[in-house]
Amino acid sequence: MESGRYPVRMARHGGDACKTVGAGITRVFELLGKRWTGLVISVLMPGPVYFADLRRAIPGISERMLSDRLGELTAAGLVIREVDEGPPLRVSYRLTEAGTAMDPALKELQVWAESYLITPTGDGPC
Amino acid sequence: MESGRYPVRMARHGGDACKTVGAGITRVFELLGKRWTGLVISVLMPGPVYFADLRRAIPGISERMLSDRLGELTAAGLVIREVDEGPPLRVSYRLTEAGTAMDPALKELQVWAESYLITPTGDGPC
Repeated sequence: MESGRYPVRMARHGGDACKTVGAGITRVFELLGKRWTGLVISVLMPGPVYFADLRRAIPGISERMLSDRLGELTAAGLVIREVDEGPPLRVSYRLTEAGTAMDPALKELQVWAESYLITPTGDGPC
Repeated sequence: MESGRYPVRMARHGGDACKTVGAGITRVFELLGKRWTGLVISVLMPGPVYFADLRRAIPGISERMLSDRLGELTAAGLVIREVDEGPPLRVSYRLTEAGTAMDPALKELQVWAESYLITPTGDGPC
């Protein structure tokens, strides 16, 4: 019998009781485990984007949801809000250094998705 | 004036109208943008885990939530449910090839979190 085929017991009591999921990955998914957050970061990756354009870039997101997510990302130190006094006055958002540092991870996720998740839909050039 | 300092317009009408966020990254965050999903994948990465142990490894997750997330991951082709007839009868879960292929992306996220997100809490050896 090959013990590798049997399920790993992740959280025995006693010596292995610390085998809960790590703090880093827990914190990442506190952020990314909310609808839209990953997409907002992804759209901001190339550079600053106006609020209205950010909203247009993410089909289905509401103004309220986008505001909430941007607020959370700002609180987490990943996004900065900038006001262009204009006229016209316009508000844009950009990633901080911590935010842009997520680029390699997002690229890996995209590579993975393209290999394992996408179902070709054939609906137009987009 | 340096145009690079000005916000990118992501979704102009006309020629650039396709500049919405990509299908791959959208699909990734349809999965990971739900609470717990990333952590469930992360805990399953080293090998099969019994349901009860999976639950213990993710502090705060309810039995219902864990079941729902495992169901969604199974439907997405990332997780397989296995029944060990026993006795005792036990149910475990393991990643498919598509699931384990997410490992490099999760590692990148963890590296990023360790550099940019973790606040040392000093609360014990875990």
